[in-house]
Amino acid sequence: MALIVHKYGGTSMGSTERIRNVARRVAKWHRAGHQLVVVPSAMSGETNRLLGLAKELAPAQTDDACERELDMLAATGEQVSSALLAMALQAEGLSAVSYAGWQVPIKTNSAYTKARIESIDDQRLRADLAAGKVVIVTGFQGVDGNGHITTLGRGGSDTSAVAVAAALKASECLIYTDVDGVYTTDPRVVAQARRLERVSFEEMLEMASMGSKVLQIRSVEFAGKYRVPLRVLSSFTPWDIDLNTEASSGTLITFEENETMEQAVVSGIAFNRDEAKISVLGVPDRPGIAYQILGAVAQAHIEVDVIIQNISKEGKTDFSFTVHRNDFQKTLHLLKTQVLPALGAADVVGDARICKVSIVGIGMRSHVGVASRMFKCLSEEGINIQMISTSEIKTSVVIDEKYMELAVRSLHREFDLDQTVDTISG
Amino acid sequence: MALIVHKYGGTSMGSTERIRNVARRVAKWHRAGHQLVVVPSAMSGETNRLLGLAKELAPAQTDDACERELDMLAATGEQVSSALLAMALQAEGLSAVSYAGWQVPIKTNSAYTKARIESIDDQRLRADLAAGKVVIVTGFQGVDGNGHITTLGRGGSDTSAVAVAAALKASECLIYTDVDGVYTTDPRVVAQARRLERVSFEEMLEMASMGSKVLQIRSVEFAGKYRVPLRVLSSFTPWDIDLNTEASSGTLITFEENETMEQAVVSGIAFNRDEAKISVLGVPDRPGIAYQILGAVAQAHIEVDVIIQNISKEGKTDFSFTVHRNDFQKTLHLLKTQVLPALGAADVVGDARICKVSIVGIGMRSHVGVASRMFKCLSEEGINIQMISTSEIKTSVVIDEKYMELAVRSLHREFDLDQTVDTISG
Repeated sequence: MALIVHKYGGTSMGSTERIRNVARRVAKWHRAGHQLVVVPSAMSGETNRLLGLAKELAPAQTDDACERELDMLAATGEQVSSALLAMALQAEGLSAVSYAGWQVPIKTNSAYTKARIESIDDQRLRADLAAGKVVIVTGFQGVDGNGHITTLGRGGSDTSAVAVAAALKASECLIYTDVDGVYTTDPRVVAQARRLERVSFEEMLEMASMGSKVLQIRSVEFAGKYRVPLRVLSSFTPWDIDLNTEASSGTLITFEENETMEQAVVSGIAFNRDEAKISVLGVPDRPGIAYQILGAVAQAHIEVDVIIQNISKEGKTDFSFTVHRNDFQKTLHLLKTQVLPALGAADVVGDARICKVSIVGIGMRSHVGVASRMFKCLSEEGINIQMISTSEIKTSVVIDEKYMELAVRSLHREFDLDQTVDTISG
Repeated sequence: MALIVHKYGGTSMGSTERIRNVARRVAKWHRAGHQLVVVPSAMSGETNRLLGLAKELAPAQTDDACERELDMLAATGEQVSSALLAMALQAEGLSAVSYAGWQVPIKTNSAYTKARIESIDDQRLRADLAAGKVVIVTGFQGVDGNGHITTLGRGGSDTSAVAVAAALKASECLIYTDVDGVYTTDPRVVAQARRLERVSFEEMLEMASMGSKVLQIRSVEFAGKYRVPLRVLSSFTPWDIDLNTEASSGTLITFEENETMEQAVVSGIAFNRDEAKISVLGVPDRPGIAYQILGAVAQAHIEVDVIIQNISKEGKTDFSFTVHRNDFQKTLHLLKTQVLPALGAADVVGDARICKVSIVGIGMRSHVGVASRMFKCLSEEGINIQMISTSEIKTSVVIDEKYMELAVRSLHREFDLDQTVDTISG
């Protein structure tokens, strides 16, 4: 008997018929002797419907008080699907109970609309599991220190599921979604993309952070931090397929490197067109500059991705970074009104028509020249590179968004991902 | 400067445009110097939509665990409209914050789907009011001693509003709804029905309990218990009408009897076709019988209205009572399986095709023969009376539901309510 966390995405919960299928699937696992905690997302379209209503009524300039109400609003979507799933499980003859984030409680900080989980109390959940109940924990939400409802940002239910799995030391966290696993790249862009049976945690982290939409990045971070075995699999297989077949389907995100297997140099090509580029020009080159610029940005709860500082010329340097496109105008405004005057920099410029393309692979650790092979490939396609950022297992470039598909396809071919080997790493 | 509670019904909150009008109306009151607490219902149709989804998924036989989930589900409707109203108020330039029942907290017992308020903590609300905020308290819901969400039953937002007004010792509780006040009877049944400018609390209590749909009965009980001045008025007057005109419109439910005014004998005709009649036949006539029958019913959280015990014949008696039609089958089942065997009664029979018609009036206290005038009127129309129940200011009869409209129209004429005197009592 194992303790297993299931997470179901919005499409999987998209209608009463689908919720009934989720209940049947969960019941199958429960009857096989497992303890089940289920984290459902809002029914697909519900969050957008709610935020659409908010858009009609909210002030043009959203502040903290308004974002608090947005969270109050958006959190209801998951509460609805949790209660419905509990009833569907009861109709299957199981004992089931659902909890909102504040009831667990899942404690978070107060960064409305993008809060971070600080702790999860497992007492109530364990007592219910011991009593033979299926426990439903409402995803995407938590409660801050002052008893205000918070939400974890888009895709936050993945993070909820992994965090709950970590708190309960679950054997595995199964992320049921509308795709059947993690691919070498988005099959809508490259028809030859292949499903990976296993992928290392580090690679998945880079893939997710690079915009691979299968999992929210923070859920992968959590999984890594607490070593929660994570599996991405499809909720659209028939609910009554053999449990063992189901349990080994999809893509396993693993922490063990299997040394006996040959590793591909590059496991996947990730891309992201949700970012915008901002440059602060003519910054006096003195200590503390990076903090002066990015400290203000961080205080406004804006996440920064790539950061580049060029070498200085005549005591002045240019400082560039990328943020989410939704934060683009807010960041520009913040820099112009608050940072620029204090800093004595020349100007702030930005560009939202960019994309980021990355090659990701554990194999890059032990192979030299992988980055230059990437640059050569892009150069041969005539694609200009605007920014470069590297880590141990990833190289990312920022390019004009119009070249995105071309770049991804070329790199997928360049790094031999168009073939049919199934297990890449792990 | 007064502390005033506004309550807006589902129709008043039925669209973003209407919510914006509510925000403008509240802003008008706030700018006039008042402290405002607003209790909104769910957007019209939302509760039915949610319960419709539940009906597709929930077990056929609902139990406590299932009703807990129904409350978890239904409570989201009010949370949505509260958050939207907060944002609309912020867009009007006001400082506003919304609280779910558990955040206040509004503590209730654990009778899911029909919980009763036990206490309201006013600390958080007072602090926000003192800080100049408009406070929105989510109606219809609370939290029980174990941290489970509860709801107060249909129309429960009225009760929330009055209870909040009582806790805060508000000057007045304004119930904004889609009708412009309390009428002598339902204008859809009797075209000559008139709006009452004032009605006494006792009369309103009887009117509400008899099925006059303007206010939930428990809200009137609360208002009476804590002497909260209550006004029922329309939310469909333009939001920018003169505040004093608005403040004196609708119907005031009052606690002061104005001795100088002549009182009508009967203030209104109430009716109710939501009930069903149940009779336990051949009950051994011994002490404790009533408790044995109704104790089991009360334990199942089924509310009983009219109760009649006939005189005994040969040591046996018949015991009749009415319950809400929704509880009819459940009550029959309960009596047959649990009560009848222990009691040694002959049989249980029931009829759901009944209605209750009542005459209500403070003036009945000091006038004799009012009840017999009612029976004579019904007799002249050939309507058979099945049950009779009386109180100090009300006489009710249970009749075949097919005679309901005829009975109400005849009684409305009989007691001179068809005329155009405006102030009846109070």
